[in-house]
Amino acid sequence: MAETRDDTPTSLGEFGRIGRFLRPLAAGFPGARSLSDDAALIDCAPGEVLVVTTDTLVAGVHFIGDEGPADIAAKALRVNLSDLAGMGARPVCYTLNLALPKMVDDGWLAAFCDGLAADQAAFDIHLAGGDSVATPGPVTITVTAFGAVKPAEALHRDGARAGDDLWVSGTIGDGLLGLEAARAHGFGDAAAYLIGRYRRPEPRVALGRVLAGVARAALDVSDGLISDAGHMAAASGLAIGIDCPAVPFSGAASDILADEPGRLPDLLTGGDDYELLFAAPPGERAAVEAAGRRTDTRVSRIGRLVAGEVGAVTACDADGSALEFARPGYRHG
Amino acid sequence: MAETRDDTPTSLGEFGRIGRFLRPLAAGFPGARSLSDDAALIDCAPGEVLVVTTDTLVAGVHFIGDEGPADIAAKALRVNLSDLAGMGARPVCYTLNLALPKMVDDGWLAAFCDGLAADQAAFDIHLAGGDSVATPGPVTITVTAFGAVKPAEALHRDGARAGDDLWVSGTIGDGLLGLEAARAHGFGDAAAYLIGRYRRPEPRVALGRVLAGVARAALDVSDGLISDAGHMAAASGLAIGIDCPAVPFSGAASDILADEPGRLPDLLTGGDDYELLFAAPPGERAAVEAAGRRTDTRVSRIGRLVAGEVGAVTACDADGSALEFARPGYRHG
Repeated sequence: MAETRDDTPTSLGEFGRIGRFLRPLAAGFPGARSLSDDAALIDCAPGEVLVVTTDTLVAGVHFIGDEGPADIAAKALRVNLSDLAGMGARPVCYTLNLALPKMVDDGWLAAFCDGLAADQAAFDIHLAGGDSVATPGPVTITVTAFGAVKPAEALHRDGARAGDDLWVSGTIGDGLLGLEAARAHGFGDAAAYLIGRYRRPEPRVALGRVLAGVARAALDVSDGLISDAGHMAAASGLAIGIDCPAVPFSGAASDILADEPGRLPDLLTGGDDYELLFAAPPGERAAVEAAGRRTDTRVSRIGRLVAGEVGAVTACDADGSALEFARPGYRHG
Repeated sequence: MAETRDDTPTSLGEFGRIGRFLRPLAAGFPGARSLSDDAALIDCAPGEVLVVTTDTLVAGVHFIGDEGPADIAAKALRVNLSDLAGMGARPVCYTLNLALPKMVDDGWLAAFCDGLAADQAAFDIHLAGGDSVATPGPVTITVTAFGAVKPAEALHRDGARAGDDLWVSGTIGDGLLGLEAARAHGFGDAAAYLIGRYRRPEPRVALGRVLAGVARAALDVSDGLISDAGHMAAASGLAIGIDCPAVPFSGAASDILADEPGRLPDLLTGGDDYELLFAAPPGERAAVEAAGRRTDTRVSRIGRLVAGEVGAVTACDADGSALEFARPGYRHG
């Protein structure tokens, strides 16, 4: 664990903060050596490779900033777990880099670490190391998550073939609606559910693992369904057709769409869903549905990979007409 | 490679930036898969474990902010390489998280990546993945570096034994003097050399690797010689005595000390040296000196590990009197 030499405003001091709040999070990972060295040791199990993913969250950019510290901790960890899920990997450990402004006190950090501890238990992952520094800017959190997977079973964006079905887990659009609800305090009774979905995405780790060997390509939906479908299509050298009536929405989102059908494109292009988008051959439909049942995860077949303009995504409504998107429907990855 | 959905001020857009500037840095690392997935694959060679270290640098805190982008890139990478050196590890790859304010343009990023490319070649390390986001705060850079080492040869802080010699590589104090020179434009002809030492520390990667099996404990000097000696002493359950006349200084630092002998405690407690501090049994003196010659690295025997108050560091001057330090000489790690 590295420590900053800069004076961080804390009653405990930087060394004390690491010892009190962070060291307990590393207790379950022997390679962390209790954060006593400047580096951690991570072993690969025989026949597996490490999967490494990293995301930085900035207060005011990636979260609103008025969330509880435990929610912020959960989001920082879960967006990375979602990337591991998209690769079909088993979580192993993570490193944590905190850049904290002066106003952040030990109580905030204690609650933040409580949030990490809860999610460590939920997803069987442990702190391996990190860094803690002072910043004159906003709270900035980098999590680098490590997973393990057999190389032949790792899921990638580029493995889809023409004729594959396109599937998605869970429901789409709650992340965007949750962000709107948190900002504008709208959506009445549904607000709490939607805000929860935005603040605490559910990384589909268990589903990702059982899709290894069933799905041909996968990624997590973080940029928005249409955009991420475009990434898969582009990487696989194909186009994608999405059947909008098949896209799964939560009850809350369905109610909002019933009132305002014109919001459909927003939900299809809004981000922060953290669901799994994956391609599988039609012959694997029963296997995909079994994977969903086995992991208690809703899976929906929403379209098809087709030959065509590479990276193009077409989303058709019930009557077969293509939707128009105000923001670009996709970008080549 | 993850991309932010937030609009970053760039003529290329975030996807374009990654493609243009970052993807070429990943060309030498197959597990990066050209940054096409959200995660990279990192394999362990048989008999080796991965060593993982991570440091965050914030403009205005860890670097002044007026450095050239290539210098900032080099520092971000090198402080992590120094941690790998302290573990005796061979560099493998790294991930890069950039949080950039609006004022940072494509030209800055291009020069930053040129700096990374030069150091990738110098230290045989490659980009494996990362994230790029917008921030309303200062430039914030996180590098997570991966090395490989045989578990039995990994160097740790806690392996020193009473009677071991204490050694240090290179010279001490240039980092602090270089920071002063960069801030205050002092030190005349020596300024350029000292500023260079501050801005581009020399990670002792080659030395660290050949010390595996020779040294019993090691870490890099980032917090200051006295403080880091305290970390080794505390971790090893010992005290340390440092013989000040044996501490190596550059010509520039020696000249400054000749003019102002009272600055000695500053140089011994200033940080940013990024030299290796290590303990080895007296029977290995010839082996340590051979390791230094083999890697063209000055090595100096500056003290001894002794039984005593755990973590205590005593630095004695030529006449045997103990130095007093205005800032705490060490803290328990």
